[in-house]
Amino acid sequence: MRIVWSMGDPHGIGPEIILKSFLKLEHSGHSFLAAGSFSVMEHYRKTLDLPVALERISDIPALHRLAARSGVLPVLSVAEPEVITPGQISAEAGRIAIESINAAAGLCRDGVCDALVTAPINKEAISQAGCRETGHTGLLGRMFGVASPTMMFFDPVLELRVALATIHEPLERVPGIIRNMDLEAFFLALAGSLKTDFRIAFPRIAVLGLNPHASDGGVMGSEELEIIAPCIEKLSDRMLIEGPFPADGFFGSKGYRNYDMVVAMYHDQGLLPFKVLAFDTGVNVTLGLPIVRTSPDHGTGFDIAGKGIASERSCYEATLLSIKIAGNRKQNGPLL
Amino acid sequence: MRIVWSMGDPHGIGPEIILKSFLKLEHSGHSFLAAGSFSVMEHYRKTLDLPVALERISDIPALHRLAARSGVLPVLSVAEPEVITPGQISAEAGRIAIESINAAAGLCRDGVCDALVTAPINKEAISQAGCRETGHTGLLGRMFGVASPTMMFFDPVLELRVALATIHEPLERVPGIIRNMDLEAFFLALAGSLKTDFRIAFPRIAVLGLNPHASDGGVMGSEELEIIAPCIEKLSDRMLIEGPFPADGFFGSKGYRNYDMVVAMYHDQGLLPFKVLAFDTGVNVTLGLPIVRTSPDHGTGFDIAGKGIASERSCYEATLLSIKIAGNRKQNGPLL
Repeated sequence: MRIVWSMGDPHGIGPEIILKSFLKLEHSGHSFLAAGSFSVMEHYRKTLDLPVALERISDIPALHRLAARSGVLPVLSVAEPEVITPGQISAEAGRIAIESINAAAGLCRDGVCDALVTAPINKEAISQAGCRETGHTGLLGRMFGVASPTMMFFDPVLELRVALATIHEPLERVPGIIRNMDLEAFFLALAGSLKTDFRIAFPRIAVLGLNPHASDGGVMGSEELEIIAPCIEKLSDRMLIEGPFPADGFFGSKGYRNYDMVVAMYHDQGLLPFKVLAFDTGVNVTLGLPIVRTSPDHGTGFDIAGKGIASERSCYEATLLSIKIAGNRKQNGPLL
Repeated sequence: MRIVWSMGDPHGIGPEIILKSFLKLEHSGHSFLAAGSFSVMEHYRKTLDLPVALERISDIPALHRLAARSGVLPVLSVAEPEVITPGQISAEAGRIAIESINAAAGLCRDGVCDALVTAPINKEAISQAGCRETGHTGLLGRMFGVASPTMMFFDPVLELRVALATIHEPLERVPGIIRNMDLEAFFLALAGSLKTDFRIAFPRIAVLGLNPHASDGGVMGSEELEIIAPCIEKLSDRMLIEGPFPADGFFGSKGYRNYDMVVAMYHDQGLLPFKVLAFDTGVNVTLGLPIVRTSPDHGTGFDIAGKGIASERSCYEATLLSIKIAGNRKQNGPLL
């Protein structure tokens, strides 16, 4: 496989975690590429004194010409900044981050690379750069014409998968969205992803309730009885899908161990338990895109950028997972 | 101190965890009392072969006459059921559970006991018994004329306190309640509780945001900028109160270690991380009542009732905490 890392915000820890992940993976038999700024990657390599050599390439033919050399990471130069100021929010940094994503995603779309792993971007820098979408999921959804890609979190240690029915929505809009979305199609797509991306032939899916105690039989909220439970009931003839479960008791009693995936109704409901259980090894995956995309489950770390103390663990795990998913998608044999 | 346990649902694990907690605490120097059904307590004592003697008392003068004898737990007989069927939901059981709470709370109000520890009740049984309030917090609030007592969860191992700004509300009502409640008075009352009940002279309070990422500067939701942050800002001249923090990152990075209390905006936001972090030792406390009330942080356990396998840990911790709070409230000296 050939994996491309998009560099992320030049002023964050993206370049550092990419370089450190490459050091762990260069002998894995896979090949790697960073898309971003050569000068930025080189800046962090030098500052942090990392035993990696970088080779600047400016186009794809150059990549193809480049013989894979041990210890050399090719960097596709998408844009080069005028200044490099670790820890600073800047419009230029935001613009370069976006261009890196676009270039890297394009390489996957065109079959040059097999998977995209995105280093963190800063919402404010992106916004200052004039971009309306401030997250990867939205950016990539727009690029590939997918209205609502699904955000999923994966922890390889616990084998825990948490998918979100809604993502970055104000809490007050969540119940309305749940009522109006096509939940059945959503659950079926999740089952499809578990089959295709994770080669789980018979996925087991748990669904959390929207309201406290999953409404306790309709006492606190109506979405469970009116919307969620009927949908689960309908699908349960065709697949193993259970719930809606009271979210706190489900996670407190480690109910997630009995399922391949847990579906949370909103951001904090999924991310709160996920981050408590899996902070260092958690990985973000976008489901429903034509390309494979994963990312570390943390932000730009502006406070520690350039200091050499950022942990590459999540980026490393995200890269491993991207290799696995890309391999699974190519494997067309029957499941089981 | 004299602590009263309300028996909880006669068909749940309440009697068992009370008896087992008493075994651990009988030599603590404090005295104990169960309020409920003598026949029920005796049934579980016999079935589970627990080395406790029970003494039936029918009124308070009898309690006062009773010399404290080692290994003897007085049981105030509030009502006796016709049948005892562990694991079954029944209106009679619900009615007895409510009468036990009323009697036990009355003993605290009248100064006969110093604190109330409530064993679990079943919402459906309570509802079948014709009671509109189906939770302890609501029942006790009504009894003492407190419009909205605060539900707080405490883990003695982590010294973690999580208070809820809203409790058993449908999710769609939460943003409106947060907008309309007197948040300032609420935060001040929490600080008061930390001083009075926990003898923390200078409480440190963290407040979580309502929306994902605490709205990321207003990008996803407006309650943080319009309501929560200004209130925190206003109070921060007078006390240490910080936030609103993005809930997932706050718990994921163990931010709670820096505060005496975390305030969650809604049920699952507080309970999800709390139950993941503290399932066995978690305790529920009601703040804002004239009496001291704690309870174990679990349900009636109908599936294991009468089997002798229920863990008394949470009930034991709730009892210890009730002793501590009752002691703190009596101690009127200056803090620090």
